[in-house]
Amino acid sequence: MDRIGVVDTMFACIDMGSIAERRLSELEGYGERFEVVRRTVPGFKDLAVAARRLIERDGCAIVVACGMPGGADLDEMCAHEASQGIMMAQVLTGTHILEVFVHMREESDPDKFATLCHNRVADHALNAYRMLYAPEELRKRAGQGIRQGGEDVGPLAVR
Amino acid sequence: MDRIGVVDTMFACIDMGSIAERRLSELEGYGERFEVVRRTVPGFKDLAVAARRLIERDGCAIVVACGMPGGADLDEMCAHEASQGIMMAQVLTGTHILEVFVHMREESDPDKFATLCHNRVADHALNAYRMLYAPEELRKRAGQGIRQGGEDVGPLAVR
Amino acid sequence: MDRIGVVDTMFACIDMGSIAERRLSELEGYGERFEVVRRTVPGFKDLAVAARRLIERDGCAIVVACGMPGGADLDEMCAHEASQGIMMAQVLTGTHILEVFVHMREESDPDKFATLCHNRVADHALNAYRMLYAPEELRKRAGQGIRQGGEDVGPLAVR
Amino acid sequence: MDRIGVVDTMFACIDMGSIAERRLSELEGYGERFEVVRRTVPGFKDLAVAARRLIERDGCAIVVACGMPGGADLDEMCAHEASQGIMMAQVLTGTHILEVFVHMREESDPDKFATLCHNRVADHALNAYRMLYAPEELRKRAGQGIRQGGEDVGPLAVR
Amino acid sequence: MDRIGVVDTMFACIDMGSIAERRLSELEGYGERFEVVRRTVPGFKDLAVAARRLIERDGCAIVVACGMPGGADLDEMCAHEASQGIMMAQVLTGTHILEVFVHMREESDPDKFATLCHNRVADHALNAYRMLYAPEELRKRAGQGIRQGGEDVGPLAVR
Repeated sequence: MDRIGVVDTMFACIDMGSIAERRLSELEGYGERFEVVRRTVPGFKDLAVAARRLIERDGCAIVVACGMPGGADLDEMCAHEASQGIMMAQVLTGTHILEVFVHMREESDPDKFATLCHNRVADHALNAYRMLYAPEELRKRAGQGIRQGGEDVGPLAVR
Repeated sequence: MDRIGVVDTMFACIDMGSIAERRLSELEGYGERFEVVRRTVPGFKDLAVAARRLIERDGCAIVVACGMPGGADLDEMCAHEASQGIMMAQVLTGTHILEVFVHMREESDPDKFATLCHNRVADHALNAYRMLYAPEELRKRAGQGIRQGGEDVGPLAVR
Repeated sequence: MDRIGVVDTMFACIDMGSIAERRLSELEGYGERFEVVRRTVPGFKDLAVAARRLIERDGCAIVVACGMPGGADLDEMCAHEASQGIMMAQVLTGTHILEVFVHMREESDPDKFATLCHNRVADHALNAYRMLYAPEELRKRAGQGIRQGGEDVGPLAVR
Repeated sequence: MDRIGVVDTMFACIDMGSIAERRLSELEGYGERFEVVRRTVPGFKDLAVAARRLIERDGCAIVVACGMPGGADLDEMCAHEASQGIMMAQVLTGTHILEVFVHMREESDPDKFATLCHNRVADHALNAYRMLYAPEELRKRAGQGIRQGGEDVGPLAVR
Repeated sequence: MDRIGVVDTMFACIDMGSIAERRLSELEGYGERFEVVRRTVPGFKDLAVAARRLIERDGCAIVVACGMPGGADLDEMCAHEASQGIMMAQVLTGTHILEVFVHMREESDPDKFATLCHNRVADHALNAYRMLYAPEELRKRAGQGIRQGGEDVGPLAVR
């Protein structure tokens, strides 16, 4: 059985990993073609190596890595370092790790923020699934201005 | 048969990958000497590992990686991370990956933006071809102020 | 016997490594299931390679890396480089290295700063232990807004 | 016969590679002890992997990598990424790659800029030669405030 | 016999490498237990790979890498890239490379600058020695606010 990894943090204020698990459990082949392996780490700087371990030790074919950078300038620098680590882990393993970061700066209203977070995580869980089992779904949407968590922008209107 | 990889994103608002495919299909040897392998990923942070996979799993000799960074500051930081990943993938594989980024900030008029995007992608598709089959075409243009997507600057006029 | 690595610096103004050692010595299995290996280096830019050596030469299963960036802008850039190194060491070894940085900018009152530093180091020492022996403790706290060294933020209140 | 690699770009407005080739051709042992291998790539982000290829595929013992960052902020970020790539290629191959960047921002007068560019490239071509065949020439100049392309600053005058 | 590497630059305005060599020559075991291998490179971006070569080709057990970033903003970016390279070389080789950078911005008075530079280099030469032969000297100073080149800050005074 294939494995899809999900890793999230104690730092985040929403249980992002469970959103991803739930979304994946709704998709065709769950429990038959693929299963989900879940990990939680302290903060987003721990995601990159956790993802690498999910790939190399647990045999995951793809990983969804969820983090929630805080609103201070220092948090943004840390998020940058965390992203660079996830990038490095991807390039070194040759395996996709979908970085799902929801920045606290993006939305100040808690309900809207929760909705944004939920939708982005769920959309990326679906992306992970499609990258493994339905790449033609991605191909069809090339250049369509697709966004995860918010409204799609759509393709550029040209006269 | 040689393979040239093309990878683009769902995030972009123009189907950049198809522009590259079309340009490559016009070049000598298409379908005989070389073929094109196309992938689409969610966003530009997924390009680096996709390019690595095109090189190592699909045997591509060179890759054109297309992305369209949005206009916010956070988008620029993400573009920086995406670029670093593409750089890392190139250096680690020892294979050229032509980064074709068209930043939304570059041009606000949609028609001009579309033209810029089209020209830059097409120019880089040609560059990829020349790097494989006609390096002397690049050598001839050394220091000629060549730009992809806009007017060439030309060589510096010195008295 | 398992080994947990602790590395800190001469640069810091608090003996952070001893705080980590003390916290680890209070945990179940100390001296039986696991022991602690301690190193001190000049400054935080020396932490990444020291951590790698603790993992590869001394066989540590996880490392707690403690540093205290100064308050100047140049210090922040150095901290960024130190963090990138720790990230790289993690990704390359596939082993967690918990970065415990207490920035002098975070708190100007020396007593509060000392308390913050003490709590953050102790909390991360516990995290290291849990990552090895009680991952379910981390899993239970996913998305709970857990902070190291200060008050937990708690999960987001949504209507 | 040893090989010295020279790589430059079509983007630059001066044929930097030819300046390097010309300078190397004036040095003792040219055509006997060493020869020059020249490549041209589209832009400076393509230099790092081109240098790696010159080292690993073409057997170059050292590489001179020439680029000319434009004057916009985005160009500077790209130059930073290009530099990081060249750094990575050096560290991974264990071979020196002399980064010769002339930033358009450095000098607005075209004639002075051309002189600066010419001198810097030529000086680095000489450096590459000396690193291979005359390291004692570098050693003699340690701490002498040597600059490539402009006036040497000279050693610090201390009372 | 062990080997300690020292590498510096022609760019610096003080012969930093000789300060390091002199300090190391005063320490116990010099010429018996360990010897010093010296290199000079053009600028600080050449330090990382030179250090790697000292480790891998010349068998150095540790390296002191000396550089002197200039005062312009561009110099600071270059220093950042040079530091990242040294970090990467450390992590990849698993060997300490002590980065000894004296920034021209740190002190405008030339005599004070020379003193700062001299002390910092000498202190790091001693650190390199202690890391090899007297790690307990570092351990004793953990969290003592030790500075290289200036007054030690001392441990934080807490009520």
